[in-house]
Amino acid sequence: MAGKSLPNEFDLIARYFAPLSHRFPGAYGLLDDVAVISASSGAELVVKSDVVVGGIDFPPGEAADLIARKALRVNLSDLAAKGATPRAYLLDLVLPGSVDEDWIAAFAAGLAADQAQYGVDLIGGDMSSTSGPVTIAICAFGEAPRGAIIRRGGARPGDTVFVTGTIGDAALGLALSRSSFRSLDARSAAFLLERYQLPQPRVTLGPQLIGIATAGLDVSDGLIADLRHLCCVSRLSAVIEARLIPLSRAARVAIGDDPEKLAMVLGGGDDYEILFTASAAQAARVEELSRSSGVSIAAIGHMSAAAKGEEPGVVVRDELGRSMSLPHEGWAHFGTHRDGP
Amino acid sequence: MAGKSLPNEFDLIARYFAPLSHRFPGAYGLLDDVAVISASSGAELVVKSDVVVGGIDFPPGEAADLIARKALRVNLSDLAAKGATPRAYLLDLVLPGSVDEDWIAAFAAGLAADQAQYGVDLIGGDMSSTSGPVTIAICAFGEAPRGAIIRRGGARPGDTVFVTGTIGDAALGLALSRSSFRSLDARSAAFLLERYQLPQPRVTLGPQLIGIATAGLDVSDGLIADLRHLCCVSRLSAVIEARLIPLSRAARVAIGDDPEKLAMVLGGGDDYEILFTASAAQAARVEELSRSSGVSIAAIGHMSAAAKGEEPGVVVRDELGRSMSLPHEGWAHFGTHRDGP
Repeated sequence: MAGKSLPNEFDLIARYFAPLSHRFPGAYGLLDDVAVISASSGAELVVKSDVVVGGIDFPPGEAADLIARKALRVNLSDLAAKGATPRAYLLDLVLPGSVDEDWIAAFAAGLAADQAQYGVDLIGGDMSSTSGPVTIAICAFGEAPRGAIIRRGGARPGDTVFVTGTIGDAALGLALSRSSFRSLDARSAAFLLERYQLPQPRVTLGPQLIGIATAGLDVSDGLIADLRHLCCVSRLSAVIEARLIPLSRAARVAIGDDPEKLAMVLGGGDDYEILFTASAAQAARVEELSRSSGVSIAAIGHMSAAAKGEEPGVVVRDELGRSMSLPHEGWAHFGTHRDGP
Repeated sequence: MAGKSLPNEFDLIARYFAPLSHRFPGAYGLLDDVAVISASSGAELVVKSDVVVGGIDFPPGEAADLIARKALRVNLSDLAAKGATPRAYLLDLVLPGSVDEDWIAAFAAGLAADQAQYGVDLIGGDMSSTSGPVTIAICAFGEAPRGAIIRRGGARPGDTVFVTGTIGDAALGLALSRSSFRSLDARSAAFLLERYQLPQPRVTLGPQLIGIATAGLDVSDGLIADLRHLCCVSRLSAVIEARLIPLSRAARVAIGDDPEKLAMVLGGGDDYEILFTASAAQAARVEELSRSSGVSIAAIGHMSAAAKGEEPGVVVRDELGRSMSLPHEGWAHFGTHRDGP
């Protein structure tokens, strides 16, 4: 990323970022200090901020356009899982001196591609320099019918637990990016790596879950960890059947019969699929939604009252009905990840 | 900041940050993935995100509560200068491994103090780790009557240029924090340093400027630089009388007859006062507003059409009416700061 030094931030904003704001009147072409945003009639604004950090959320040498798209998509994924339709975002971009103008151009091009794909607009933000790694904070705005967002806490005993797409690809992709797996074909490897680098937020499906899902969230910390979050707030436990967890063909090949890689699937993060609960009576509507959206949705278990005197928790059962141990319990930035919302 | 390692982020959020969200129903006690926010009837949401970085925006050893309060206040200042009343904020907190739990407790206490002072609530955010310095991105939400915010681009020829409070204290305070000034008394030094460390966003005054100010923004890059921003978007020039720029007693003492320190006042940043324009007919209302709010407001010059064929610009005149040279032209993170919005 070495190169000639950067123009000042005002020129960079005018050249690369202002064009990303031109469809949104309340962004004022990034020529003012604030942006103005209103929800549509009958809707309310849903907001989410996530930060991604070089060396933590992406490898130091990652392509700038992929960094930009992932930073945006992890926020869109949160909105989608709550039933909100994404509309706009603010970008705080913190750059080390090693970043040059080509990097910024590629970063902005990544945002432009995703803006077109997801129908969102840049409406403001800030730039700063740092002695540390590239750091990107995005605050995303969506909207949902008033009072209708899908919460973590609404699950009921007996609800079915569903998950969209496939689980574990990103964790396997991350592991692959660090060391190749013996005997994994190039096509499978490329698929898994892309699932890690470029999540596919379920922005069309998510809002259609309003009225179906009793609770939900996106899978970012890992299937088990995120299900545990849902359980904690819903004050319920969950029982998951390992054989029902949806795996891609590439993931099946990568896992083979290696129990460590299966644990990676259960405990790894970065899937950005939607994990949700719905009453058994909604099974047909979920199936229809899967068909109409083209996104597979798998039933993987059910919710139940927590055992008396015990904290809500997650049990994963193997094919013989035995509880599996869960060596990886999800991603946390500090300390050891324990139960907790 | 060395100490025992941090608990995981979920525990930290539950212990230190969730209590900051409890007055705001749409924050869901930080137990969900998103927050929900609506403007009052007839109002619209005004949003702003600013990032502060250790070693850039505050010195490495700065007290955690001061870092927190400044990070929040620079955003509140932007909202206030646009006429918006602050309501809530999202916090992205990126921490190096050297930060311990005492630091986090002090940081959260700083936020709590400012929440009480400014009537805002934490409604969400994210935590991450970094190999770099403490980095804080805050996205602040305010509200203003629909279509009424004070823009950069509304100034008219003949408008008076006003500024609140005093200018240059923060720049002098920053310089003081790096090297003491000969012959500056301790009380003046303490005043200037606090003006740098802890801005006073004009959150009560700002919304009252709606209907009075034709254009405005907060002084963060420096009086001249920010006035130039206003000029660029308004497509006008400005003429400022140096003798009318309001200086604190401490700043007068610190400047003495040192022209370099005067340049620091004109070019330095971090004042977080409101710079605005208003028609001459509004002079009495501005005076009345200053009296009722207890915030001094000084007329420092006027707006004029840019000379034919020339870019909009800022001229500062000395006591004899001569144009002064402006050696410091404001703060920019990258490259050389030139004209530009």
